[in-house]
Amino acid sequence: MTIKAIGISGSLRKASTNSGLLRCAKANLPAGMELEIVDISAIPFYNGDIAAGDRPAVLLELLAKIAAADALVLACPEYNYSLAPALKNVIDWASREADNKVLNGKPVAILGAAGGMGSSRSQYHLRQVCVFVNLLPLAKPEVFANAFAGGFDANGNVTDEAISKNVAAQMAALQAWAKQLQK
Amino acid sequence: MTIKAIGISGSLRKASTNSGLLRCAKANLPAGMELEIVDISAIPFYNGDIAAGDRPAVLLELLAKIAAADALVLACPEYNYSLAPALKNVIDWASREADNKVLNGKPVAILGAAGGMGSSRSQYHLRQVCVFVNLLPLAKPEVFANAFAGGFDANGNVTDEAISKNVAAQMAALQAWAKQLQK
Amino acid sequence: MTIKAIGISGSLRKASTNSGLLRCAKANLPAGMELEIVDISAIPFYNGDIAAGDRPAVLLELLAKIAAADALVLACPEYNYSLAPALKNVIDWASREADNKVLNGKPVAILGAAGGMGSSRSQYHLRQVCVFVNLLPLAKPEVFANAFAGGFDANGNVTDEAISKNVAAQMAALQAWAKQLQK
Amino acid sequence: MTIKAIGISGSLRKASTNSGLLRCAKANLPAGMELEIVDISAIPFYNGDIAAGDRPAVLLELLAKIAAADALVLACPEYNYSLAPALKNVIDWASREADNKVLNGKPVAILGAAGGMGSSRSQYHLRQVCVFVNLLPLAKPEVFANAFAGGFDANGNVTDEAISKNVAAQMAALQAWAKQLQK
Repeated sequence: MTIKAIGISGSLRKASTNSGLLRCAKANLPAGMELEIVDISAIPFYNGDIAAGDRPAVLLELLAKIAAADALVLACPEYNYSLAPALKNVIDWASREADNKVLNGKPVAILGAAGGMGSSRSQYHLRQVCVFVNLLPLAKPEVFANAFAGGFDANGNVTDEAISKNVAAQMAALQAWAKQLQK
Repeated sequence: MTIKAIGISGSLRKASTNSGLLRCAKANLPAGMELEIVDISAIPFYNGDIAAGDRPAVLLELLAKIAAADALVLACPEYNYSLAPALKNVIDWASREADNKVLNGKPVAILGAAGGMGSSRSQYHLRQVCVFVNLLPLAKPEVFANAFAGGFDANGNVTDEAISKNVAAQMAALQAWAKQLQK
Repeated sequence: MTIKAIGISGSLRKASTNSGLLRCAKANLPAGMELEIVDISAIPFYNGDIAAGDRPAVLLELLAKIAAADALVLACPEYNYSLAPALKNVIDWASREADNKVLNGKPVAILGAAGGMGSSRSQYHLRQVCVFVNLLPLAKPEVFANAFAGGFDANGNVTDEAISKNVAAQMAALQAWAKQLQK
Repeated sequence: MTIKAIGISGSLRKASTNSGLLRCAKANLPAGMELEIVDISAIPFYNGDIAAGDRPAVLLELLAKIAAADALVLACPEYNYSLAPALKNVIDWASREADNKVLNGKPVAILGAAGGMGSSRSQYHLRQVCVFVNLLPLAKPEVFANAFAGGFDANGNVTDEAISKNVAAQMAALQAWAKQLQK
């Protein structure tokens, strides 16, 4: 059975290395796995006053894609030792839909690029978020890519083989994790 | 010397209990302290591609107010066990201005309203953010207000005396903390 | 298939409410599940200089029990907003055995009793530990028992029905989680 | 006025790189600062059942030294993404003495050596502990020393100049922080 995953990057920059990690993942999928990378740049800030009927079409389409996916791949930048608001915001919107059915029990892989710590500080905050919304994050392998050590080109594409292999291993592990949970 | 503080609420809802905490703080300031509550609802998502010259006026005005303040009061909601994107986003913008001079070394009080844990899980994430941007958070007293136990009215205003006293004590402690740091 | 779990309490006090939570769990197991509560009071501090052959028998017996278990139940006190050293120390010893095979991939339930936050701050630190050692923590239900609100007797036994039901629900969920992972 | 600091290493190993960081700090103090490194290897696990009168002399001597110090320097290893029990245990004992007067309001510098992340994951847990016990941690500079990249000799002594300079800068900053808080 094919595992269909949705990839979301928390960075809105065109040359984002985090978005580059998602492209790298897509180019290194195991057989039997698909990854669609979605654009979140037009998603507004969560506001509890916005009635369900007033949610913009771009948001509803995104939520529908997440709901239909077998797994999520979250590219998690680190801004000031914590989460990128744009990524957290998507999770917040999704958690409010239909009693959290969009996210509940879904396997997820977390990867990120940043300075020397490779976004690790941010990724542990994201893992805490997963507890509440019952996303089931893959433990290993973790992907902490150094964004400033020559492993990415000017467009944010991965050029370093060690990073590519790490990402590929994570995608294979995500596929196995998704299958293990589908019982 | 008067301590001039800026209050920022991470919730965009009109009847937000977190915004209510800020109003409560403003109504319970010690002598020699001022608090201006600012509106962040029009601040766009941080995007590193937006050049300095293209930043909207509403953002620049907000950053100027933060820069001029002696202290910050951050009302920190908890969304899915972590930060509200709208609050984090303001800090992210501010951290990118002028080598972080807007935030560097500034005393800050953190308070929040949420479910039974009173936004504590989110507040510790915010404290980690403070390390990087060198905001100096007051340790005690912490304010963890239960938003669903009758302590707020339908408009988000504080009606519980214990919460008010807790907030007032925090403002007095923030004033003392700001003076202690002004050496 | 019977799920055989090992229960470890991080508190060394005789009347510990965290140990009481484990007894409550043992008294409220679903059919097809067993729980053995172990004593860790004689386990020494981890010290990397102690050679494998010099580890005391009490430690080796504990590690063998953990290795043989299908799941772990960790009663997690909160000391100063983080983990009880005695509990963390057991995990540290176990992680150094045989390339972490003692812990690797094992399902775990985390529960705790403490002040108003019910040890939540400590439990999230424990969840971060789980990432590294690849323990697979159950996400829900979480158990955050208030130790000072009349739900325990003077011996640390649970007397509050809501806490008992919460613990029982967690044990049932752990059993299901262990079976889901045994694929 | 001389700032007298106490240095505590969370690692019990003889050739600990964390203990080496403390020796490096002692060798690189600014004028007007002293650092005494203490040994915690004989401190027992915290147990609330041990009455005040039954605490061993080695513990009481340690607590007296901490109480008398102007500042603390905590060398914080990372075990399984969180704190070393031996270090956390000392803080737990100290927090129970005399209404926390031993620790309350004391400036502290945190540094650590570990794998690639330099114990950062552990250090943020320690910072959360500081909130409760009202230790006042220096924000910057942080010291995240890679223990496995050639910067230490076989005895755990610092041999890398960049690490030494980082540590020296932190000690100077701690001295300034302690003076700023002594108002």
